[in-house]
Amino acid sequence: MGLQTYEIPMSLYADNRKRVLKAMQASGEEGVALFKGGVATERYDSDHENLFRQESFFAYVFGVTEPGYFGAIDLKDGHSTLFIPRLAEEYAIWMGRIHPPSYLQKKYDVDDVFYVDEMAAKLNAYEVVHTLHGQNTDSQSWCEEFEVEELTARVEKGKLHTATMECRVCKSTAEIDVLRYVARISSEAHVKCMQMIEPGMAEYQIEACFQHYCYSIGGMRNMAYTCICATGPNSAVLHYGHAGAPNNRIFGDGDMALMDMGAEYNCYCSDITCSYPVNGKFSADQRVVYSAVLAAQEAVFAAIKPGVEWVAMHRLAERSILEVLLREGFLLGATVEELMGHGIGSVFMPHGLGHLLGLETHDVGGYPAGRERVPGKLGVSKLRMNRTLEEGMVLTVEPGCYFVEILLTKAMAEPATSRFFNAEAIKRCISFGGVRLEDDIVVTADGMENMTMCPKQIEDVEAVMAGKEWPPPPPAPVA
Amino acid sequence: MGLQTYEIPMSLYADNRKRVLKAMQASGEEGVALFKGGVATERYDSDHENLFRQESFFAYVFGVTEPGYFGAIDLKDGHSTLFIPRLAEEYAIWMGRIHPPSYLQKKYDVDDVFYVDEMAAKLNAYEVVHTLHGQNTDSQSWCEEFEVEELTARVEKGKLHTATMECRVCKSTAEIDVLRYVARISSEAHVKCMQMIEPGMAEYQIEACFQHYCYSIGGMRNMAYTCICATGPNSAVLHYGHAGAPNNRIFGDGDMALMDMGAEYNCYCSDITCSYPVNGKFSADQRVVYSAVLAAQEAVFAAIKPGVEWVAMHRLAERSILEVLLREGFLLGATVEELMGHGIGSVFMPHGLGHLLGLETHDVGGYPAGRERVPGKLGVSKLRMNRTLEEGMVLTVEPGCYFVEILLTKAMAEPATSRFFNAEAIKRCISFGGVRLEDDIVVTADGMENMTMCPKQIEDVEAVMAGKEWPPPPPAPVA
Repeated sequence: MGLQTYEIPMSLYADNRKRVLKAMQASGEEGVALFKGGVATERYDSDHENLFRQESFFAYVFGVTEPGYFGAIDLKDGHSTLFIPRLAEEYAIWMGRIHPPSYLQKKYDVDDVFYVDEMAAKLNAYEVVHTLHGQNTDSQSWCEEFEVEELTARVEKGKLHTATMECRVCKSTAEIDVLRYVARISSEAHVKCMQMIEPGMAEYQIEACFQHYCYSIGGMRNMAYTCICATGPNSAVLHYGHAGAPNNRIFGDGDMALMDMGAEYNCYCSDITCSYPVNGKFSADQRVVYSAVLAAQEAVFAAIKPGVEWVAMHRLAERSILEVLLREGFLLGATVEELMGHGIGSVFMPHGLGHLLGLETHDVGGYPAGRERVPGKLGVSKLRMNRTLEEGMVLTVEPGCYFVEILLTKAMAEPATSRFFNAEAIKRCISFGGVRLEDDIVVTADGMENMTMCPKQIEDVEAVMAGKEWPPPPPAPVA
Repeated sequence: MGLQTYEIPMSLYADNRKRVLKAMQASGEEGVALFKGGVATERYDSDHENLFRQESFFAYVFGVTEPGYFGAIDLKDGHSTLFIPRLAEEYAIWMGRIHPPSYLQKKYDVDDVFYVDEMAAKLNAYEVVHTLHGQNTDSQSWCEEFEVEELTARVEKGKLHTATMECRVCKSTAEIDVLRYVARISSEAHVKCMQMIEPGMAEYQIEACFQHYCYSIGGMRNMAYTCICATGPNSAVLHYGHAGAPNNRIFGDGDMALMDMGAEYNCYCSDITCSYPVNGKFSADQRVVYSAVLAAQEAVFAAIKPGVEWVAMHRLAERSILEVLLREGFLLGATVEELMGHGIGSVFMPHGLGHLLGLETHDVGGYPAGRERVPGKLGVSKLRMNRTLEEGMVLTVEPGCYFVEILLTKAMAEPATSRFFNAEAIKRCISFGGVRLEDDIVVTADGMENMTMCPKQIEDVEAVMAGKEWPPPPPAPVA
């Protein structure tokens, strides 16, 4: 096995710091910006140490992999300082070599390194210390509040959060390079799973295969999120795979599989979904549903460019899916616009089209000030972003078409909408689950680049599952 | 790939509840015992849901895999009740089927299932509600305190913790069966790693291989603890492998590897360490150090039985290691007892000999009332248990011999101890790291059973690394 891991240049984080500096300066802020890194945690009351994963804002500006740090950026000149924990001598026996500040200054390429117990003295040289204070629009949770002992400088909360969050929305070239690497390795791992799957296996064996590939080949120890390895009716459960539904179904012949898996590398995430028949051959119904989702993804891909509204892309995906379902007779007696008017799009796709991707799978910045959620219960209202597309945004595009029993039962019982459904076709598909196709893309100056490299066309999926090399080798040079 | 996962009978948890009931009744307690299950958590302020892992006390009495439950045991008749969260209708779309109480009553084989919002009313039928309140002797952390809204019954804290902790110390036959399964699969995974390792690979590729085997073959999604895949000098860092030292060294030819890895299954843990040369052949020094540790483990195995003091086993291991180091000329000019008197044992083995193993890797109950830590800084004082052995205890036996630079430098500079060290031999080994051999054993009526099945003798290790089948096939029947 070869090592092909990716070396992230420390300049990536220096550039991120420059962005934050510029944004704070642009709004006239002075003093120092102080970020608190994540701390080590134990499980419940035990001494089981959870594997540390850096907090994403801190990862953005410093790229530090160890717990217990703080970091500061001088808002006049960008001077960067890390504050590290002072470790007891015994640390060397249990945890490893105790590195001096000079080593860490070089490793993280910052201007200065001091100990955390020296922090207040350093910060008190400033009049204002900015700390992160703000709400995550996906979780509704707030940044952890913290106090620095013996700090006498004035603490200013809130401005740093808005500024840093906005910096994180459009990715730098160096960040896109990392995200492209994560997407590539995760794509290869998906292909590996497609080529291994067969009836009789368990869903978690796909998860195990995916994780193994990403870690042993890509050096990716963490998944970006809990793997969703859904087959049969489980594919209609959008966040399947958690501890209460832990990828433990045995595949039947004829099942569709919906595999939503992505690794992360130094906190940069991928988020990819492939859907395919477990036995390697699409049935007629599977073809219809898959084609509807593929058409939606292709329509969105063709439309993405700077200036386009993300909500419009969601609507476009809904329309594309409904068009195919109408054409194939799963829906009846209406135009696509009528179906849209009755909200039938969200019956088949109850989630949003996609989200920002970066240091979080659901990355920050989806709802800037002045942009609100579209009202409603499902579908477009579930979008994690309502923004105009800009160059450098990295997004998932993940249309899906699902047969969710409680949604279909309700819509088919509703007098205003029941006539649109071909009851026989729907009944046939109720144990089908669903199809989702999810790729990671970056918005370019005049369109987009797809960083995901999994087979998509039905004939390619079937060929790859039958053993065909993917991606196909480049054509031989003309003699 | 075949599926060979293990079905845990719900009677295991019913038996655990009976043990707790009996213990509480024996000390004259009345009313009801109330346990709080773990809750779902998100990472920092994001919506990244951490993979849920049940709290171990709750796992012990109910075996529930989902978050947000409570459970009660009537202390008169043992009547068991689970209280489940009332889920919103949308749960079915995102997380999966909403099971009615009757389904969960059957799944978890309890007498009753109600919703959490009905809990206070049910509990108020009792005069006393016992809740867990106590300190973990490894982490020094306390159980989470919680209040039940609208509870009017008197809450009694503390007694339930002591009783349940003592119940968890000696394992039931059903629990030992699960632990034996986890140890077997983890042992097979270790053998797989031994057969794959070669110079030029990275430490994390061993972790990836181990996890993949345990998950895809054994259905074990979680590791019992972060894998320690240490080679070269890293083997002298006892808790290597954490995020700050993440198993990322490339193996050199001639390195020793110390692989401390164990999976868990439904919260039951394994904890196994194998040590072997990366290139498959022990060098002369490697043989000496390995033999010292193996001699220590064998001496302890031969001595373990009910009634024996664990502290005495630690001392026995220290003596065995020192004996070999003396015999081989690594130590000089003293008897083993003189070396012991000067604390030289803890220079080479700064950690404890082993610990209780069960629903936690470092399982509870190591220091019952009246038993204290042995004074000192390292070695025996680090023991996570100071108890007399009893039938049914499951323990790790993990002697080790390490060349820890800061410890050796100090001891070799100390006037009272410097003369014991063969400076030339020690110098040769300072980049060696260390050797640990760790097996999971159960104390039986007259001795012990080793549940771990990895090769141990030098000739077996070398043969297995060269491709020999392990465990060896049974001998052919005599014709």
